[in-house]
Amino acid sequence: MVDDENLKAENEPLARLECLGNAKQMVPRMFEMIGHSKFFTDFTRENVETLTSYMKAYRAEPGDLVIREGDVDDFMLFIVEGRVNIVKTDSHGERRPMTIVGPGGTLGEMSMIDGEPRFASCIALEATVFSVFSRDSMVKIILEQPSLGAKILIKLVTLLSQRLRSTSSDLLQHLERSEAV
Amino acid sequence: MVDDENLKAENEPLARLECLGNAKQMVPRMFEMIGHSKFFTDFTRENVETLTSYMKAYRAEPGDLVIREGDVDDFMLFIVEGRVNIVKTDSHGERRPMTIVGPGGTLGEMSMIDGEPRFASCIALEATVFSVFSRDSMVKIILEQPSLGAKILIKLVTLLSQRLRSTSSDLLQHLERSEAV
Repeated sequence: MVDDENLKAENEPLARLECLGNAKQMVPRMFEMIGHSKFFTDFTRENVETLTSYMKAYRAEPGDLVIREGDVDDFMLFIVEGRVNIVKTDSHGERRPMTIVGPGGTLGEMSMIDGEPRFASCIALEATVFSVFSRDSMVKIILEQPSLGAKILIKLVTLLSQRLRSTSSDLLQHLERSEAV
Repeated sequence: MVDDENLKAENEPLARLECLGNAKQMVPRMFEMIGHSKFFTDFTRENVETLTSYMKAYRAEPGDLVIREGDVDDFMLFIVEGRVNIVKTDSHGERRPMTIVGPGGTLGEMSMIDGEPRFASCIALEATVFSVFSRDSMVKIILEQPSLGAKILIKLVTLLSQRLRSTSSDLLQHLERSEAV
């Protein structure tokens, strides 16, 4: 079992990146970025401090893979510095750039929540610093700090709801257009 | 202010339907439906009882409007009996049927969560009994029953995540197809 775990850790993109330790050292920077982060609006400084104490910080160099499409893992990222390209493989095996996420943005919430394989890959576009929030930490916060846990869950649910609205609208527009062809 | 409230209530589709009172009377039926409801897997009987005590039950007749696209309100529905048609107006003003939701299914989570206008209309296909869960009740449960609150939020977040995956996949497929044309 231990061997499997090690093997898995080695194959994980995160394990190949530079770990900067507990994210708590980044609280001032996390706090700065709150202004332009949807996620952190209405989080107090204390909330941010508590949340970051449950996270680890990492650094990726340009071109580094941060999340690999199809992998089964269960963490999300908060981008503190730099930019990350989201890329999805299409049915012809070609990588399609989907969007770019910068400081204050979040990545990987879906797999953190539902444990399903990663929907897309995330590749650092430049030197990027991010903090990692795992499902285990989420569960711990819910148990140890229920009101902060609820706040985070409400944020996640709002974020996903807004994305679902916008993706559904895009899909409808494409359906209409393809019918018009 | 009171007049505005009354006017709003009269214009709301829900206000025109038959209210069956507190949903708690439907606990046995709610419990039966758990078997085929994604939402209620891993809810205990006690959880279901508590949750339903925060909900009201309604009945709609075939053709009744249950939710109107564009309305601003903040509740979700649990279908106990019957089936509901989800219909979205396209850019030509035509109503497009999107999907049908039956017993055990949920509706309207997005507006319950983010307070944005309703994305689509819901129309009863047959005699339908459903329970209504408002954002106010959600907030109350989080404050009064934090662990059940977290359980509900985790369910919502998982549900939205799965829908976002499937909608994103559909969108990608359509993008690929329209490029191939």
